[in-house]
Amino acid sequence: MGRWEPGARQRLVLAAVDLFTEQGYDATTVAQIAERAGVTKSTFFRHFPDKRELLVAGQESMCRLLSEGIAEAPDGASPMVAVAAALERASTMMGPDNRELGPRIKAAVAASTELQERDALKTVSLAAAMTTALLARGVPEMTAHLAGELGVLAFKQGYARWSETEHHDGRGLAEYALAALDELRTASRSLD
Amino acid sequence: MGRWEPGARQRLVLAAVDLFTEQGYDATTVAQIAERAGVTKSTFFRHFPDKRELLVAGQESMCRLLSEGIAEAPDGASPMVAVAAALERASTMMGPDNRELGPRIKAAVAASTELQERDALKTVSLAAAMTTALLARGVPEMTAHLAGELGVLAFKQGYARWSETEHHDGRGLAEYALAALDELRTASRSLD
Repeated sequence: MGRWEPGARQRLVLAAVDLFTEQGYDATTVAQIAERAGVTKSTFFRHFPDKRELLVAGQESMCRLLSEGIAEAPDGASPMVAVAAALERASTMMGPDNRELGPRIKAAVAASTELQERDALKTVSLAAAMTTALLARGVPEMTAHLAGELGVLAFKQGYARWSETEHHDGRGLAEYALAALDELRTASRSLD
Repeated sequence: MGRWEPGARQRLVLAAVDLFTEQGYDATTVAQIAERAGVTKSTFFRHFPDKRELLVAGQESMCRLLSEGIAEAPDGASPMVAVAAALERASTMMGPDNRELGPRIKAAVAASTELQERDALKTVSLAAAMTTALLARGVPEMTAHLAGELGVLAFKQGYARWSETEHHDGRGLAEYALAALDELRTASRSLD
């Protein structure tokens, strides 16, 4: 897929985010996105089932990487160490383009209930992927749920900070996500 | 609203859940739901904007109760004490009918991506309501995020157990939600 059209997928995402920002999500059609990206509609549909999926592209790959990171953590690793491994692995998916697009995607999502719903389902799916992988390691149920939620919170907070940093500092998402995870661990000691 | 048709709202929810279970969410129309509930379509639309909102009815009231519970917690209450107050207050919305409907709503949601998305947005909204109320109390950002997530996790786990309990034991949702919150606090000590 896409071998004969290098960069089509990325161009489609860029075009869609621009159009969503300019004229709103509802008013934007697949035909307009394809035209802006300089590809045909059928190329669009080779990459995405519809315009909504475009902004949560990569959910399945990300769930897979999170699960693998947890499954392959060393025997005896604590839930937090396993979650940290998951975040590191999933962060490898996110490069400079994702960093740059972050604030624009956030604005498009904030302006559309439909996208908010889809984005919320992505959040829930990522947490569930981590929780399931932790349960498979024998982590008790409530701990696995909690660690999954902490993981997704760290990933989202890390991504927000990473993509909002003005100075593009060459640091990867993993560094931000792991810092957020550390903060959350510290915060968990000041709940009572 | 509904004063002249006592119980219409509740009958609509029951009818919808039955129809979703019998024939699926996609195949069910507003007209069918209204007919099964013995009301007109316009009565349906006085209560709900569409069939999807029907299953997440009460989200706004629940967000309000969660916020109020946190805002009105005593000065100096820890984040967890404030969240416990929020869960107690929101639990007052949920009576025996909600308990009985729980497993059927769960099955309907599990069978429809559209409902999963809407349900995920509800989850995210409830957490955000608690986080916002905690921030307003001066709780630091990461602690507020974490406590909001713990609160929603406890509410969901508590609701699942409450509504899946075979013996209808007369216990309220609050008892289950607070027990789940306690378990999560304990779990948070075994993350490392």
